[in-house]
Amino acid sequence: MFESAKLKHHVDKAAYRREEAKLREALLNAQFDLKQQGRFPVLILIAGVEGAGKGETVNLLNEWMDPRHIHAHAFSQPSDEERERPAHWRFWRALPPKGEIGIFFGAWHTMPIVQRVMGEIRKAEFSAAVGEIQRLEKMLCDEGVVLIKYWFHLSKGQQRRRLKSLEQDPKTRWRVTDVEWDYFKLYDRFIRVCEPFLRETSTGEAPWIVVPGADSHFRALTVGRHLLATIRKRLDEKQPKALPRKALPLPAPTDNLNVLSALELNRKMTREEYEQELEKWQGRLNLASRDPRFKTMSVVAVFEGNDGAGKGGAIRRVTQALDARWYDNISVAVPTEEERAQPYLWRFWRHLPRHGSLTIFDRSWYGRVLVERIEGFCSDADWMRAYSEINDFEESMVRHGEVVVKFWLAISKDEQYRRFKQREKVAFKRFKITQEDWRNRKKWEAYEVAVCDMVDRTSTAAAPWTLVEANNKYHARIKVLKTLCTALEEQLERIPKKPAKKKQ
Amino acid sequence: MFESAKLKHHVDKAAYRREEAKLREALLNAQFDLKQQGRFPVLILIAGVEGAGKGETVNLLNEWMDPRHIHAHAFSQPSDEERERPAHWRFWRALPPKGEIGIFFGAWHTMPIVQRVMGEIRKAEFSAAVGEIQRLEKMLCDEGVVLIKYWFHLSKGQQRRRLKSLEQDPKTRWRVTDVEWDYFKLYDRFIRVCEPFLRETSTGEAPWIVVPGADSHFRALTVGRHLLATIRKRLDEKQPKALPRKALPLPAPTDNLNVLSALELNRKMTREEYEQELEKWQGRLNLASRDPRFKTMSVVAVFEGNDGAGKGGAIRRVTQALDARWYDNISVAVPTEEERAQPYLWRFWRHLPRHGSLTIFDRSWYGRVLVERIEGFCSDADWMRAYSEINDFEESMVRHGEVVVKFWLAISKDEQYRRFKQREKVAFKRFKITQEDWRNRKKWEAYEVAVCDMVDRTSTAAAPWTLVEANNKYHARIKVLKTLCTALEEQLERIPKKPAKKKQ
Repeated sequence: MFESAKLKHHVDKAAYRREEAKLREALLNAQFDLKQQGRFPVLILIAGVEGAGKGETVNLLNEWMDPRHIHAHAFSQPSDEERERPAHWRFWRALPPKGEIGIFFGAWHTMPIVQRVMGEIRKAEFSAAVGEIQRLEKMLCDEGVVLIKYWFHLSKGQQRRRLKSLEQDPKTRWRVTDVEWDYFKLYDRFIRVCEPFLRETSTGEAPWIVVPGADSHFRALTVGRHLLATIRKRLDEKQPKALPRKALPLPAPTDNLNVLSALELNRKMTREEYEQELEKWQGRLNLASRDPRFKTMSVVAVFEGNDGAGKGGAIRRVTQALDARWYDNISVAVPTEEERAQPYLWRFWRHLPRHGSLTIFDRSWYGRVLVERIEGFCSDADWMRAYSEINDFEESMVRHGEVVVKFWLAISKDEQYRRFKQREKVAFKRFKITQEDWRNRKKWEAYEVAVCDMVDRTSTAAAPWTLVEANNKYHARIKVLKTLCTALEEQLERIPKKPAKKKQ
Repeated sequence: MFESAKLKHHVDKAAYRREEAKLREALLNAQFDLKQQGRFPVLILIAGVEGAGKGETVNLLNEWMDPRHIHAHAFSQPSDEERERPAHWRFWRALPPKGEIGIFFGAWHTMPIVQRVMGEIRKAEFSAAVGEIQRLEKMLCDEGVVLIKYWFHLSKGQQRRRLKSLEQDPKTRWRVTDVEWDYFKLYDRFIRVCEPFLRETSTGEAPWIVVPGADSHFRALTVGRHLLATIRKRLDEKQPKALPRKALPLPAPTDNLNVLSALELNRKMTREEYEQELEKWQGRLNLASRDPRFKTMSVVAVFEGNDGAGKGGAIRRVTQALDARWYDNISVAVPTEEERAQPYLWRFWRHLPRHGSLTIFDRSWYGRVLVERIEGFCSDADWMRAYSEINDFEESMVRHGEVVVKFWLAISKDEQYRRFKQREKVAFKRFKITQEDWRNRKKWEAYEVAVCDMVDRTSTAAAPWTLVEANNKYHARIKVLKTLCTALEEQLERIPKKPAKKKQ
C-alpha cells in the first residue's frame, strides 16, 4: 500500500500557487452545491503516521472551504458519558448531517490499531475488530454517507527527518516530546499492523487513500483534487446513492408452521395467580435495580408487538417496579428533521442509557424490517441489510455490558378485533385507536411474514427475542417482567461485588 | 409557607380509590390534548424534605399518565461534560420539548440551598443565586413553559417518625443510612434557608406549591388535582401564553449621534502593515491556544455585523491560527424542528464548547433583538426581555471561566453597495449574495436603531461588545484578532500555572 508514498514526490511553489487558486474556487462551489442539495453528508477520516501533515491538511481544508459547514472532531480520551456507552457512541454523536462535511481525526480504527501495536489484544480480537469496522463502514455507505479515508504516510527515514526538523524549529519544538520518539521506535511494528489493515478495510465504496506526506504542496494537492473529484462525482450522479436496488428474495413460507403460529396464544393465568406473581417479580426487579452493581451497567428493553397486544400495559408493569429517576421511555414515532438527516440507526443511538439506568423503547429500530418493509418506505435492499446492521448494533451493546431484552407481544387476529372494538367504547382509551390501526390490520398476513423473518434473523444468543403469548394480559405481563428481571439478575451476577464501604 | 403542611391532613382509602379512578382518566385526557396541541411543555420541579414522598409521587404520576411522554431526570453528580459548561447547561439539555412533560428531581435551586445550609456560601452569594433563579424561571414562563414547582414537606417530628418507620421495614431499610440521619440533624437550618427561598421564588406564574407529605393519599390527590387543573387551564386558554404583549417603547433617537455613527468607518491599514500584524497576532493566538491552561477553559466568539461587512473573512483569519480539532464554527440559520420546540436560547446552549475549545457563532442569539425584532418574528415584549436574558446567559458563561467576545462589524451603506455589486460578479462568491441581502438593505435605518439598542443594553463589563470599523478589511481583521487574542491571554493569566510534569 505504501510503495508510491515512499517516492520523492514534489510540487514546486509556483505550480502549487497556480493550482491552489483554481482548486479552492472549485471546492467552494462543490461545498455550496453539497449544502444546497442536502442529499448526503461527507465524512473524512484522517489517519496515518505521526508528522505526515494530518493537522496541516485539515487546517488547509478549513481554509479553502467554508468552515461554517465543516466540523472537525478529535477523539482523544473518552468522557465519562462516552465510556458509559458502547465504544462507537462517540462517533455516532459526531456524524455530520446531510449537506455538511465532518472530519474525524482518528476514528473507530484508532483504538484497535493502538491496542494491537502495543500487544494488548491478540490477532483474533484484532480480526474481529476489523470485521466490525468493515460492516460499520459498509452501513454508512449504504445509508448514503460519502466516506473518504485518508492515510498520511512517511517512510521511517522521512519520519525521523521530520521529527528532527520539527525539534529544531523553535516554533514547532513543542510538537516533539518523548512520546513522539517512543512511538517512532514502534514504527516497524505499527506498519506491520496497519498495512494489512488498510488493505482489508479498503472497499470499492470507501477505499483508503494513501497520501505521501513528506512534501506539503504535493499532499495538499493530492487531497484537494481527490476530495473535489469525489464530492463532484456524487453530486452529479442523477440518482442519490441509496436508491432502491434489488435484493434477492427471501423464501416464501412453505407451510403454515412458523414461530408465530407455533405459539399457544391463549396461555391463561388467573387474576389471583397474577397478583401473586406480579408482587413477586416487581419486588425482585425493584431489588435488582437497587443493587449497587447496577450503577456499572445499563438495560435496553425493546417492546414490539401487534397493535393492541398490550405493550403499554406491560411497560407500565415494568416501570411500576422502578424509580422514575432511573428509567426513560422512548416512544418511537415519525423521525424529526435532525433525525432524517442521519443514518436510520442514529435516532436510537442517541437515546442509549448511561450506567445505572434502563431505557424502554416502545417500538424501535425494528420498524425498519416491519413497517418500513411492508409500507415500502425503504427499498428491499435497505431492509434486507438492516438485519445484520441491527445485529451489530445490539452486539455492540451487549459487548459493552448492557442487557438487551426484546419482546414481541403476539395476539390472535380475533383478539385484536375484540380489543379494537372495546377501545372505541372506552373514553380514556380513545387515543389508543386510530384509523391507522384498522388499516394496519388489513396487512395482518404481511406483518406475520415480516415478524417471522425478523425473529429468525435477529434472535441472537446475546440478544434473543422473547415471544410473548398475549391473548391473556396477565400471562403476558408476568412473562415480560420475569424475562426482564432474570436477564438483569444474571448480568448482575457477572459483575464482581465491591467490598462494602465502611460507615463513617 | 409550611403552616398548613404541619396539620394532620388525611384521606381515607375508600375516598382515595373513588377519586383516583376519575383523576387518572382526566389526567390521561389532558396529557393527550397536551401532546396533540403541541403548544407548550410542562416542567415539574420536585423539591422538599427527605422522606416526604417525592419519589413515590413521581412514580405515581408515571403510573397515572402515559409514561411515553413523561421524562424524569435526577440531577446528582454532574458528568465531566457537564462540569465543563456553565452550571445550568445540564438543565437546558434536559428541558422537555413542547407537548411533553418533564420532571426534574432537584434543579437549579438544589446546589445553592445545599451550599447555604452547609455554610459554604455567604448570604450575599445566596441572594445572587436566588436572583438568577428568579430570572431563569421568569424567562422559561415567558417562553411558554408551564412551570410547576412542588415542595414536599414534613415537620421535624413527622420526618423523625418517617425515617424510623422506613428503617423498621425490611423492604425500605436501605433508604435510611447515616447520611439521612446527618441531614435530619440539619432540619432546622435547612428550613431556615428554604422558607424565605420559597417565598422569594414564588411568583404569580410559577408559585411554589407546598404539599403536605405525611399522608400518602392526601399528597397524591393534592398533586394530581393541582397538576390537572394547571394543565387544563393552559390548554383551554384560547391564546397561547407567549403571544404578543405590549412593551413600553424605547426612546426614539434624539439626534444622529450614536455608537455606530460615532465610528470612524474608514480606518485604514496598508497591506504591508496588515501582513506584519496578521503574522504577529495569529502567532500569538496560536501560542495562547496551545497553553496547557487552555485545557481548563473555553472561548465563545460571537460575530454579528452588516451584510457584507466581512464576518466570514474575519472568522477565517481567526481559524487559520487555530488547530481545526479545537474549534467549531456554528452558522446560525433557521432553527430546526427540535429547536423550535424549545425556548429560543436552547439552540445556543446546546453548542457551548467543552474545555480546551473555541466556538465561533456566525450570527447568534442576538438575532432575537435584530432580525426577529425588525421582521416582527416575535412580539415587542419578547425582544425587550431578551436583553436581560442574554446578559444572564453570557454572565453564566463568564462566571464559569469562559471568555466571551462579541464583534459587530460595521460598514457604511455605500461600502455595502459596492461589495454587493462586486459579489454578483465574482463566480465563487455568488452564494454570498441573495435577494434577501438586497431586501435587508432597505431596512438599513431600522437595523441601525436595533444595533445601537443592542450595544447599549448588552455591552457588559464581563462580555463587552467590540465595534469593528470594517470599511477596510485589513483594519477589521486585525482588530478582531487582536481583541480575541488579548481576551484569551488575559484569561490565561488568571489561571494558576501547574508545575511542569517531570519527563519520564
